[in-house]
Amino acid sequence: MNRRMFLTNASRSAMVTGVGLLGAPAVHATTRYAWTMVTAWPKDFPGVGTGANNLAQHIARMSDQRLTITVYGAGELVPAFDIFDAVAAGKAEMGHASALYWKAKHPAMPFFATVPFGLTAQEMEAWLRYGGGEALWDALYTGFNLKPFAAGNTGVQMGGWFNKVINTVEDFKGLKMRFPGLGGDVLARLGAQIVDLPGSDILPALQSGAIEAAEWVGPYNDLAFGLHTVAQYYYWPGWHEPGAVLECMIHKPVYEALPADLQAIITQAMQAAYSDMLAEYTAGNNTALMTLVQTHKVQLRRFPNAVLGRLGKISQEVVAALAATDPMAQKVYQSFHAFRKHAIEWGQIGEEAYSLARSLTSTF
Amino acid sequence: MNRRMFLTNASRSAMVTGVGLLGAPAVHATTRYAWTMVTAWPKDFPGVGTGANNLAQHIARMSDQRLTITVYGAGELVPAFDIFDAVAAGKAEMGHASALYWKAKHPAMPFFATVPFGLTAQEMEAWLRYGGGEALWDALYTGFNLKPFAAGNTGVQMGGWFNKVINTVEDFKGLKMRFPGLGGDVLARLGAQIVDLPGSDILPALQSGAIEAAEWVGPYNDLAFGLHTVAQYYYWPGWHEPGAVLECMIHKPVYEALPADLQAIITQAMQAAYSDMLAEYTAGNNTALMTLVQTHKVQLRRFPNAVLGRLGKISQEVVAALAATDPMAQKVYQSFHAFRKHAIEWGQIGEEAYSLARSLTSTF
Repeated sequence: MNRRMFLTNASRSAMVTGVGLLGAPAVHATTRYAWTMVTAWPKDFPGVGTGANNLAQHIARMSDQRLTITVYGAGELVPAFDIFDAVAAGKAEMGHASALYWKAKHPAMPFFATVPFGLTAQEMEAWLRYGGGEALWDALYTGFNLKPFAAGNTGVQMGGWFNKVINTVEDFKGLKMRFPGLGGDVLARLGAQIVDLPGSDILPALQSGAIEAAEWVGPYNDLAFGLHTVAQYYYWPGWHEPGAVLECMIHKPVYEALPADLQAIITQAMQAAYSDMLAEYTAGNNTALMTLVQTHKVQLRRFPNAVLGRLGKISQEVVAALAATDPMAQKVYQSFHAFRKHAIEWGQIGEEAYSLARSLTSTF
Repeated sequence: MNRRMFLTNASRSAMVTGVGLLGAPAVHATTRYAWTMVTAWPKDFPGVGTGANNLAQHIARMSDQRLTITVYGAGELVPAFDIFDAVAAGKAEMGHASALYWKAKHPAMPFFATVPFGLTAQEMEAWLRYGGGEALWDALYTGFNLKPFAAGNTGVQMGGWFNKVINTVEDFKGLKMRFPGLGGDVLARLGAQIVDLPGSDILPALQSGAIEAAEWVGPYNDLAFGLHTVAQYYYWPGWHEPGAVLECMIHKPVYEALPADLQAIITQAMQAAYSDMLAEYTAGNNTALMTLVQTHKVQLRRFPNAVLGRLGKISQEVVAALAATDPMAQKVYQSFHAFRKHAIEWGQIGEEAYSLARSLTSTF
């Protein structure tokens, strides 16, 4: 079609003014909703907490205040680890946490958060939206009267804070550590004593000696908690949480009772929040890391290849053993596992290969 | 706060039913808008084209059909490379393309699409939203009466299709290639003859011998165009387009005339579309790559390190030279350049380090 036809067409559809108003104002009947979101994070905590706040604000703006959401920090209305039950029971409409914390509810849970040596943030989103993951997650949470959404990601985390050097896997033996999820199960097989703690309890536990080592998130969050004040060595890479998904779950009956436009607004806000949080971490991590290293003299250390190799092998066993305990977990594992193989193959030609080439040739 | 207080609180804010309805239905006066989106892609083309369609659908659903958008493929209303001018002039309200194509309009343009040896998709989003990039892009496009949004990303692309083996940079000499953006400028310095072509013209140009080599996107898109039917070698990594941003620009006066809720809906839909498209490519690329290699016997080849090193050095010169031609381009370059340094440093501890460790230990 040539330019003349284009202009003719444009005139026909009343685009000539460039405004495109159609007909008279419509009248739109609406119902207002005021919801509560309970979260597993300290109120306004960078990344996870601010991500929950932003999500609530965007939903309010998009809905012209028809759906407003009040966000509460961990412990304000409900303790961090009680969020799942509270939202499942409809005591709050929304909960912002991570499926990492609900392993005891169902063995399929960790696959919707992060798995040791599993998928990166970008690969997780691809599996969830274009690899069948989201449908499996929906099916799993329906059993709890919940509708799950991926609403953030921290990106690759760090390997944790230690006051001893890790030379071999023997060095994990007897170590009292805060290390949640399957990563903790892997270290437990190596003799570590794993302690379950919400984020805000990590610093006091390290100070009191209740634990000797801990992982939280990455530089951006760990600096905010002051973990460098009680531990000397900061290990990488974060083999155990390569792309931790933050979830925002909704009590299913209240979600289903919403009009279709508010459901669409929520769905898109969740998806926007996913990569927005990831962008915040990606931008914030290196600045925080520089502060930790240059100002606070933290020592960065990479796990030796032999340690990573052994952790990889045990991770395989732990993940497969977990999946074998339940048919639904096995189904999720098979889907995740097949996608992971493709993601690794493509990464080695795509993103991983590019990053290596850039590091190799980096001069500007 | 304990559970008893939580329940008390919940009762106070009328959450006991779990529904949270507030007051009587409100009446909401609205205006309807019917917009046109012109795109630089074949109608419904996987990834870039379907991403534009999805974006339009999500906006319509979220706005309860108050803002509907009709999407046109390249050439249906306006040729691919005329989109910028058409939307700037208000002949269409929206345009879906890539700033890569508008280098002749302003030397700062490529930084908002992709730069050789520049940022990955995830890093680009971090720079745009949390590193100052978006404000600079807004300022640049305001001069053209446009409001820009990042609305998609292809992820790391492939290094192109060739019928000769690339052993040294001498092998680019005299080669007639479709290679847009700054990557093309880099190869031109090595003696390649760069030809500007929209995507749909690549296959016929390779068939007729008008060009001898070409890059398009990656396996998911290149398979769809059938480029394997006319070229034998498929090179990696995509040094020239490590995370190409798809833009959706809006004629600024019509965007500003929208009510705040529709502006918020558009903004969030764009952000959701960014990573949704990336997820589609991430999921689709490896399956397509396997088809290319196993069914169509395409030969995958990695550029030799010496070639990548030379391309990296020339890329540095080309990018810096471009920035030096204009104060705004220089300002954008400085911001991008500083962010890139941080991104590389963090990547080497974070994502790149993790992917390498996973490849090293990958057994399950």
